[in-house]
Amino acid sequence: MVSKEMYELGAKSSVIREIFEFGKKRAAEIGKENVYDFSLGNPSVPAPEKVNETIRKLTLEMEPCALHGYTSAVGDNETRQAIADDLNRRFGTSFSMNNFYMTAGAAASLCITFRALAEKDDEIIIFAPYFPEYQVFISASGAKPVEVKCKEDDLQIDLEAFKNAINEHTKAVVLNSPNNPSGVVTSEETVKAMTDILREKQKEYGKSIFLVSDEPYRELVYGDIKVPFLTKYYDNTIVCYSYSKSLSLPGDRIGYILVPNEVESFELIFKSVCGAGRSLGYVCAPSLMQFVIKECTGMTSDISVYKKNRDILVNAFTEYGFTLAKPDGAFYLFMKSPEESATAFCEKAKKYDLLLVPSDSFGFPGYVRLSYCVSTEMIERSLPSFKKLAEEYNLI
Amino acid sequence: MVSKEMYELGAKSSVIREIFEFGKKRAAEIGKENVYDFSLGNPSVPAPEKVNETIRKLTLEMEPCALHGYTSAVGDNETRQAIADDLNRRFGTSFSMNNFYMTAGAAASLCITFRALAEKDDEIIIFAPYFPEYQVFISASGAKPVEVKCKEDDLQIDLEAFKNAINEHTKAVVLNSPNNPSGVVTSEETVKAMTDILREKQKEYGKSIFLVSDEPYRELVYGDIKVPFLTKYYDNTIVCYSYSKSLSLPGDRIGYILVPNEVESFELIFKSVCGAGRSLGYVCAPSLMQFVIKECTGMTSDISVYKKNRDILVNAFTEYGFTLAKPDGAFYLFMKSPEESATAFCEKAKKYDLLLVPSDSFGFPGYVRLSYCVSTEMIERSLPSFKKLAEEYNLI
Repeated sequence: MVSKEMYELGAKSSVIREIFEFGKKRAAEIGKENVYDFSLGNPSVPAPEKVNETIRKLTLEMEPCALHGYTSAVGDNETRQAIADDLNRRFGTSFSMNNFYMTAGAAASLCITFRALAEKDDEIIIFAPYFPEYQVFISASGAKPVEVKCKEDDLQIDLEAFKNAINEHTKAVVLNSPNNPSGVVTSEETVKAMTDILREKQKEYGKSIFLVSDEPYRELVYGDIKVPFLTKYYDNTIVCYSYSKSLSLPGDRIGYILVPNEVESFELIFKSVCGAGRSLGYVCAPSLMQFVIKECTGMTSDISVYKKNRDILVNAFTEYGFTLAKPDGAFYLFMKSPEESATAFCEKAKKYDLLLVPSDSFGFPGYVRLSYCVSTEMIERSLPSFKKLAEEYNLI
Repeated sequence: MVSKEMYELGAKSSVIREIFEFGKKRAAEIGKENVYDFSLGNPSVPAPEKVNETIRKLTLEMEPCALHGYTSAVGDNETRQAIADDLNRRFGTSFSMNNFYMTAGAAASLCITFRALAEKDDEIIIFAPYFPEYQVFISASGAKPVEVKCKEDDLQIDLEAFKNAINEHTKAVVLNSPNNPSGVVTSEETVKAMTDILREKQKEYGKSIFLVSDEPYRELVYGDIKVPFLTKYYDNTIVCYSYSKSLSLPGDRIGYILVPNEVESFELIFKSVCGAGRSLGYVCAPSLMQFVIKECTGMTSDISVYKKNRDILVNAFTEYGFTLAKPDGAFYLFMKSPEESATAFCEKAKKYDLLLVPSDSFGFPGYVRLSYCVSTEMIERSLPSFKKLAEEYNLI
């Protein structure tokens, strides 16, 4: 009676959602302040005040039919040029508005890009650990997701495994750095080596292989870490961006797809992106938010809070004897489970009202993800519980 | 290198866009006030002031991380309940929030619904004249669009042809009333007869056939015309709604899918809608606009302007001898071309700087569409040109 596949997608309860529901139930029992929920990856610092100021200004000054009307399918020209100018200033690139297709956020950017590229029998490589919806979005495009596991020691790309995974069916590779769920930033050394491999394989198979850079966490890095801007390392790079994390606007559904001129057959690719947007019902990203982005692109929320949270947790976890992936970006820590089953570890953590996400659904068992986009005060209150958990495993 | 289908969709230039571009060029030559552009279906009356007031209030009063954060995938509960309450009050229905899935507008509502329902070999019936993207959206879902032409005399559903088009593969029927492009409202008599046929065919084939009501123009009717609320006539009705037209918010991408409890296997259908939303990257409709809808659902822009425009044009066209479909709703007039080729008629109209859309892309040749969501003053200035056009055809 319905699409079996869609029903199953809709009926499957997500692990993260189950943990979240457990947290709500537990909070009702023992008080919200005694439940330490590290399960959800939602920004906890507000959008810059300029966002709300701009929204109010636009509602007062802009002609309502223009403010709330359709922009062209690819997006407002001035917004697209503002984004180009900002990136050019920050990264020394030379984009123009014609390289941008505005979208309703990261999921839209990825779905449209995969749909634009995917032909019959295509494969798209993703690196584990990965954002679980990659599997859903790639499958929906008609391509086959192919997993390559990162190295256990530093969670950087396993270059040998990557090389072996590429074949004549490989259409694209998705890189998500800073990474959800690991918080790891792919090093410049790794980027150079992986793009060398891509160039070599393009030559070997006589075809384009696209690097899809899913980078909603681009601006969320701490200390002197730099995130390599991938279009400068590899011509066939398509950037999928969202303002969800950098401006704390996940609900407003605003982002873009960037197709640089250097991409092989730029016209063909850009038109296919337009076609895929049309096919998926996405023409015209939310207009009010496009006009906000025109004023606010390049700004970030106050990410110093995330750095503070990260530092407190990293210091405490190191003291308690937990093992962490190098926590340079996004707002996630990826902690090695002290026992083989991450699910069992999460169950033990629950006894201390610590809500963590086992890494199995990220395609990389044996770890847990902590989202530290929570209040610093909650983090501080949670530390004695983490200490007790470490003691239970004799880590201290 | 890319999906051929997506490239073709992106590369194909739309007839309406070409006319629009011609109008811009012509305006540069002879002045904007001398070009009479009736090609675009964008609301010309502003959103109710309450919309902008609510937006400003929310940015001042609501916690920013909640205002700009994700709602649940199906949408904000209070918004969904507000919509249920409003419909129940107006139509005597008994919906609750659990019947609603919030979406990013009409295109999203349709794409998600088709994707949720479509199984291999399914057919979905559409009535010509139709919104051209139906073909795109239905094909993208994997189903096959099947056209049934309306009757030439009144553009109501041809019940005999409809009956004959239904077979064991028919999964759904799309009804768009008030209609784009014709402005015709499907009469209660026709609704009763078509739903009788659907019930009979459900029995004959032992399966559910869904009525997908695409009703963004529901509130845009003039005089004492009533639009039958379809869930009251047929249990297996799924409503796809958008606030684009009623609140003049096309750019804000906000609408919903309504699955009543009476729909066969409600749980199955609703979960499939959730799954399809996930698969297409649509979870969580724009949140700020969801909160606006909570306050503004049930309101409309000042549609008296559209009525005034319609009346001026209908009176003039009748006087000039043009033939029109019964113009009860939306903001479109559907005029019979005085010569066989509507394209040739539109070319002649262009000589008088009247920009009309030939009906071929709506699946119903021999007519032109006029969008009267334009300024009344422009309509008044355009009348002498229409008169000359009529004279050229010896209609007067």
